[in-house]
Amino acid sequence: MSKYVFGVDIGGTTVKLGLFTEAGELMDKWEIPTVTADHGEKIVPDVADSIKAKMAEKSIAKDDVIGIGIGAPGATDEDGVMTGGAVNLGWGVFNLRTTLEELTGGIKVKAANDANVAAYGEAWKGGGKGCKNMVAVTLGTGVGGGIIVGGKIVTGANGAGGEIGHIHIEDDETEKCNCGHEGCLEQYASATGVVRLAKRRLAKDDKPSSLRNVELSAKEVFDAVRAGDAVAIEIAERFGYYLGKGLAAVANVVNPEIILIGGGVSKAGDLLIPYIEPVFLKYVFPPCKNVEFKLAELGNDAGIYGSAGLILGAMD
Amino acid sequence: MSKYVFGVDIGGTTVKLGLFTEAGELMDKWEIPTVTADHGEKIVPDVADSIKAKMAEKSIAKDDVIGIGIGAPGATDEDGVMTGGAVNLGWGVFNLRTTLEELTGGIKVKAANDANVAAYGEAWKGGGKGCKNMVAVTLGTGVGGGIIVGGKIVTGANGAGGEIGHIHIEDDETEKCNCGHEGCLEQYASATGVVRLAKRRLAKDDKPSSLRNVELSAKEVFDAVRAGDAVAIEIAERFGYYLGKGLAAVANVVNPEIILIGGGVSKAGDLLIPYIEPVFLKYVFPPCKNVEFKLAELGNDAGIYGSAGLILGAMD
Repeated sequence: MSKYVFGVDIGGTTVKLGLFTEAGELMDKWEIPTVTADHGEKIVPDVADSIKAKMAEKSIAKDDVIGIGIGAPGATDEDGVMTGGAVNLGWGVFNLRTTLEELTGGIKVKAANDANVAAYGEAWKGGGKGCKNMVAVTLGTGVGGGIIVGGKIVTGANGAGGEIGHIHIEDDETEKCNCGHEGCLEQYASATGVVRLAKRRLAKDDKPSSLRNVELSAKEVFDAVRAGDAVAIEIAERFGYYLGKGLAAVANVVNPEIILIGGGVSKAGDLLIPYIEPVFLKYVFPPCKNVEFKLAELGNDAGIYGSAGLILGAMD
Repeated sequence: MSKYVFGVDIGGTTVKLGLFTEAGELMDKWEIPTVTADHGEKIVPDVADSIKAKMAEKSIAKDDVIGIGIGAPGATDEDGVMTGGAVNLGWGVFNLRTTLEELTGGIKVKAANDANVAAYGEAWKGGGKGCKNMVAVTLGTGVGGGIIVGGKIVTGANGAGGEIGHIHIEDDETEKCNCGHEGCLEQYASATGVVRLAKRRLAKDDKPSSLRNVELSAKEVFDAVRAGDAVAIEIAERFGYYLGKGLAAVANVVNPEIILIGGGVSKAGDLLIPYIEPVFLKYVFPPCKNVEFKLAELGNDAGIYGSAGLILGAMD
């Protein structure tokens, strides 16, 4: 009898779901809206209903479901407790794992942070395929991270492991990060961070640049880098300085084989790595220097792969 | 029938050995000299002979030995390979685990880096008793580290996990660290680092201080702090600034419950923590801030406990 696994990735606007075989093949994927009204109280029941509907559609019996993996946008401890709730969903502190287990009539659930789960997915089937020691950094609106050590997610005491975007990297910063501190990596290496760096550089003098005529975005900056704009290159160097230095600190702690770069900013692709890698090599402890920089490959599917992989113990 | 475990900790001058019960009780401990002559080729055979002699003395049959854990002063990967050799012992690259297994007639061996093993021992039976997410930092001649996440040692790709002494922490440093870079945490937070900080501070002006009349050492600095010497307090603040900032970066990566401070500098005891903790709290990502700072408790026995604990899977 065939066995199945569900992988679920809860985002701020949609929940992504995937049905996988026991062998880890994605058979079907779909989305449902994330209903954040009323403190997001419908979200987990909607997930359970969607899974039950898919089981009915495919004639899958409960005993044939090995388990449901689920990633959520907030710190999630080993037991499945959202230790700080999930601000984007309206959630307070509760146990996501046991809640979904009850709503599905006792199917085994594993819950983890969404960035950690996405890293696990990339380590299993994506850019870090088969790599048991990997750091994934996501450069989007913020800087997120997920770390795999010895084939396991670095969850930490209350599920905040891998939050590398808030490593302090600049003593001279005066503007506040969303976390309340000043000088976090996220303030320089996120999409909004790149725009901040660009504004600061452009305000410094009158050196001509194509960036003076556009609405600034990380994409515009890296497009200008590609076109050889000297000011844009200075901005990319600054971006690379911060990210390379931050990732070197992370590598000294966990000694990865691969550092995987994902998120919106990573659409600049291979262009980014030459700005990051030389700085990384300058600052990393020499025995930790053999790191391959790669780009994430699974895009929006990383979360469903990773959460299903957790159930399968895919990286054990 | 009672079962036994051996724990071994190879140091530069002596090898410490311990005989433990299956329940993790230390029954006997002893030392043998570390013979570093001839590229240290006698060290592993000496360990094997010492274990066999102890088995004979106690009438322990081979089948009653669950295994031998061994810590060595160099990067050691999951398989037991000393990936960069061990400079202090004269060792090149080789597999410590399989070598000792062969020399003991097939007793199961687990090998790991000595600092990582000591951290494991402290997490099992020492200052971090029962704590599955812990960072241990050793402030001695250098700054070493060992990290436990989810009850497992963070070994990393080639066994260099936990090398937090070489996190880059100061852009303005001009002197070189032993690792070849400038501005590593070790240059400020080790015993020699504290002396460097002291020399720099004393050279800055003529402010009176008891430290102007002594041969500088980390102990003299912290003794002067205890006596209320204003210059010594400035030096301790600088030490705390670097160590607090570095440990905050580590905590953002692995989200520990406990940060354990050991090594020679930690003999200053509770005096140190008030200089580290406020800086740590200033820089750590708020969800990772609930960390207890404690002092290591097992001293020189941490390594034999940790290596025996590895065999017992004591923190699983």
